[in-house]
Amino acid sequence: MSICPDGPVKIGPYAFHSRLFVGTGKYMSDAIMQEAITASGTELVTVALRRVDLSQPKKPSLLEALPSSVKILPNTAGCHTVQDALLVADIARAAGIGDLIKLEMIGDNEWLWPDPILTLEATKRLVQKGFAVMVYTSPDPVLAKHLEDEGAAAVMPLGSPIGSGQGIVNTEVIGRIKERVTRVPIVVDAGIGAAADAAMAMELGADAVLINTAIALAQDPVAMAQAMKWAVMAGRQGFLAGRMTKQWRASASSPAQGQVRAHVPS
Amino acid sequence: MSICPDGPVKIGPYAFHSRLFVGTGKYMSDAIMQEAITASGTELVTVALRRVDLSQPKKPSLLEALPSSVKILPNTAGCHTVQDALLVADIARAAGIGDLIKLEMIGDNEWLWPDPILTLEATKRLVQKGFAVMVYTSPDPVLAKHLEDEGAAAVMPLGSPIGSGQGIVNTEVIGRIKERVTRVPIVVDAGIGAAADAAMAMELGADAVLINTAIALAQDPVAMAQAMKWAVMAGRQGFLAGRMTKQWRASASSPAQGQVRAHVPS
Amino acid sequence: MSICPDGPVKIGPYAFHSRLFVGTGKYMSDAIMQEAITASGTELVTVALRRVDLSQPKKPSLLEALPSSVKILPNTAGCHTVQDALLVADIARAAGIGDLIKLEMIGDNEWLWPDPILTLEATKRLVQKGFAVMVYTSPDPVLAKHLEDEGAAAVMPLGSPIGSGQGIVNTEVIGRIKERVTRVPIVVDAGIGAAADAAMAMELGADAVLINTAIALAQDPVAMAQAMKWAVMAGRQGFLAGRMTKQWRASASSPAQGQVRAHVPS
Amino acid sequence: MSICPDGPVKIGPYAFHSRLFVGTGKYMSDAIMQEAITASGTELVTVALRRVDLSQPKKPSLLEALPSSVKILPNTAGCHTVQDALLVADIARAAGIGDLIKLEMIGDNEWLWPDPILTLEATKRLVQKGFAVMVYTSPDPVLAKHLEDEGAAAVMPLGSPIGSGQGIVNTEVIGRIKERVTRVPIVVDAGIGAAADAAMAMELGADAVLINTAIALAQDPVAMAQAMKWAVMAGRQGFLAGRMTKQWRASASSPAQGQVRAHVPS
Repeated sequence: MSICPDGPVKIGPYAFHSRLFVGTGKYMSDAIMQEAITASGTELVTVALRRVDLSQPKKPSLLEALPSSVKILPNTAGCHTVQDALLVADIARAAGIGDLIKLEMIGDNEWLWPDPILTLEATKRLVQKGFAVMVYTSPDPVLAKHLEDEGAAAVMPLGSPIGSGQGIVNTEVIGRIKERVTRVPIVVDAGIGAAADAAMAMELGADAVLINTAIALAQDPVAMAQAMKWAVMAGRQGFLAGRMTKQWRASASSPAQGQVRAHVPS
Repeated sequence: MSICPDGPVKIGPYAFHSRLFVGTGKYMSDAIMQEAITASGTELVTVALRRVDLSQPKKPSLLEALPSSVKILPNTAGCHTVQDALLVADIARAAGIGDLIKLEMIGDNEWLWPDPILTLEATKRLVQKGFAVMVYTSPDPVLAKHLEDEGAAAVMPLGSPIGSGQGIVNTEVIGRIKERVTRVPIVVDAGIGAAADAAMAMELGADAVLINTAIALAQDPVAMAQAMKWAVMAGRQGFLAGRMTKQWRASASSPAQGQVRAHVPS
Repeated sequence: MSICPDGPVKIGPYAFHSRLFVGTGKYMSDAIMQEAITASGTELVTVALRRVDLSQPKKPSLLEALPSSVKILPNTAGCHTVQDALLVADIARAAGIGDLIKLEMIGDNEWLWPDPILTLEATKRLVQKGFAVMVYTSPDPVLAKHLEDEGAAAVMPLGSPIGSGQGIVNTEVIGRIKERVTRVPIVVDAGIGAAADAAMAMELGADAVLINTAIALAQDPVAMAQAMKWAVMAGRQGFLAGRMTKQWRASASSPAQGQVRAHVPS
Repeated sequence: MSICPDGPVKIGPYAFHSRLFVGTGKYMSDAIMQEAITASGTELVTVALRRVDLSQPKKPSLLEALPSSVKILPNTAGCHTVQDALLVADIARAAGIGDLIKLEMIGDNEWLWPDPILTLEATKRLVQKGFAVMVYTSPDPVLAKHLEDEGAAAVMPLGSPIGSGQGIVNTEVIGRIKERVTRVPIVVDAGIGAAADAAMAMELGADAVLINTAIALAQDPVAMAQAMKWAVMAGRQGFLAGRMTKQWRASASSPAQGQVRAHVPS
């Protein structure tokens, strides 16, 4: 029984069999981070380039700490200008990390809400430079469509603010984005706080989820990583299985033709 | 890696390694029902006794259709009086199905909402007769406590009306019931519509969930059964792992001390 | 323009033109309480009899503090047995407060959740003794129907726990109770925290609301009392006006046949 | 007692004593529209310029149908390019309607979701041309701040899609926008379906609301207009009064020191 019986999710030239992507921030130790990453079954791990000193002669410790089986997704966390984001991406590519980049253009330091204008501009520029750009964005169907049109490799709407664990606050908008963005994957990025949130994101039609804080700050991060692995499998499978329609009148699970009693629910 | 690393859930004298219980109503065919039950990994399957003709000389077909590995949980669906419920329980025991019974005392035929008064009375009587009673109930913490005090083997609050698929409408009340009922398991019964709902029920502290319609009426019931299996595993594991605290201010996943840029999020 | 163009709400032999009932607990001073009661426009004010020393030769101060225009609704807050509730009701009647009584039979001291079994029993007994009983109850449609059948003068489901200010947690259940209870008014009692909650309760079909903490603990209780007065008017009027149907696809407010532009929204 | 004891809301050079703005679409007749506008107490009414034939020698009928006491707010509904929006605004000003304009730059014909990029661009251009621009926008705190910085006279986030009546789907984001946009009013525009929604928008901190469909498509539009008037008064007053804090443990409304009974809630 494979994790993804429906085949891998494809982002740019890459294919991932696990639909759970994870972050590397906030862990108490690199050892716990490593173990959690392994337990999650992920194949794509995001790293803030700011945390990695690429100028060192030897390989940076954080990158060394990651299992060789996972692909590194450098992100532009902390960049507030398009130029900064381009610089970080260039550095990552020059350091051999590759051309897959996660774009974060924060416009609000308190809520870590993305700036829609800078995000679109930076996406254009990074695509022109040949990057496969996974774009963190506000949950805006029209902006999501613009990002796809400009060549984003994946559109990553937030479920709720980064690190908040509030879950998918506006469930309907994820479906709307999925209706608009038809050529590249949707990844719910930010806000997932519990396994149910991850399952819900997938059942709403997301192609993958990215989780950091909910794993790193769980009481047992390794156990939570496994919970999230199962939650993403459950949500994806539930999406593919086709959920029942919600009913606003109850109906008997057990059909009414009974032997023992005659006066059954109508 | 076991499904339940925390040990089985115990109901009366019985122990179940899977925390997913399933129903048998509404399936298009017995064959699909059988396959879904197997895919779910369940060890406890509920059957409306009304659907089973126990007077036949040979074993009723529905019971024959169930895998021998699962325990049968006869339920009193369709009973509107305490006497009816006692009669159904007696018949089930006489037929050799055993002394584990699911009590449903419906007080509202349209919403299939349980009658709190009759439910408590029938619970007392069934316990006196030596049954292990799993009690379907409205999501009422005080009533739940009464049911435990009267000897119920499991308290089964509804998440939303039977067959509605609306999920856990009042999330807080499940936690309250769990605080009050400390000696026997809580099973969320009714209302689960999607994998995320099942995971949420478990993360709210339920010891198990009972699902029927969400599997039987999925477009692919067998795939959904597997999704629910994973969702319950995910939710239970997430509960045990201890979720992060919800935050109402975002905080950066990637800590602020960066190499590349100085002006990082405060 | 009257507050209630649809006529008064009738409870037992009484009629109230304002559909806002208020409590008297938790105020910083009797003076603020008096002013808030006046600003609310209420005609029915509930008082815990425990707070009133009826053995004093002169009129108790709390009752003196209330405007003479409002009717007093003694409540049984703090009673944990049917006998206690009956005693409180008898004392109130003997003291000349009248035969209208609010029954509260708390079954959970932490959540102040009512006990459904004792509530039904006490209702029967109080009705037999000739009281007009307004019954605080859990939001349970079947129990609500039992209470009406036993002669309750009003059924008062909680929106959320007393004093919590969480609002109407389970919006659908209020409508269900209203469908079941057709002969006496429904009053949403407990949980209202803001003006929007009061309006929502009325739009869901409640005949009145009872508010205490949300007014008493507002920063400006008198202003909040007025806000609640308007909110109840708004919600009642909105209910009578018949709300639009919720749409899950947007539609243009401004019809598409335009002069200036041709390419209008489809 | 004035509708707005806290003074008028100021938009550009204009001041409005009622914080309820209304639209003119979807009414069954001009007569009902007129009556509803009067009942609403509004002082600002939005009109899609597409619906008004300004080339006619005599005054267009729709504008004639409006009470002379209300200010007209022409909107750019139906415009899909910045040029179109500028043209509509110019026509309105040339026709003597004034320099107050509501900008709608729809980016999604199905959901009528605004285009954030074109919205910001058109806002800049209209401000440069001297218009007082009220900007319909997605509920995005960073974009809202950009709009204020570019000189918008009011920022108008949607509560849910135009005409949907779903209410304020993401309640938290309205507060965030209010924290960011500090110099000009916030008007919740789109999505309000019921009186409780209008009250909630105001209690979340909105300075005003704009309502069209919820009034026009109510069963009784005139009664609903009045309900919305009261709801906005209630919500504004509730906001100013300072709501109680939500509690996640219930606390007794009636303090525990009682005369009649000793065993009161702890």
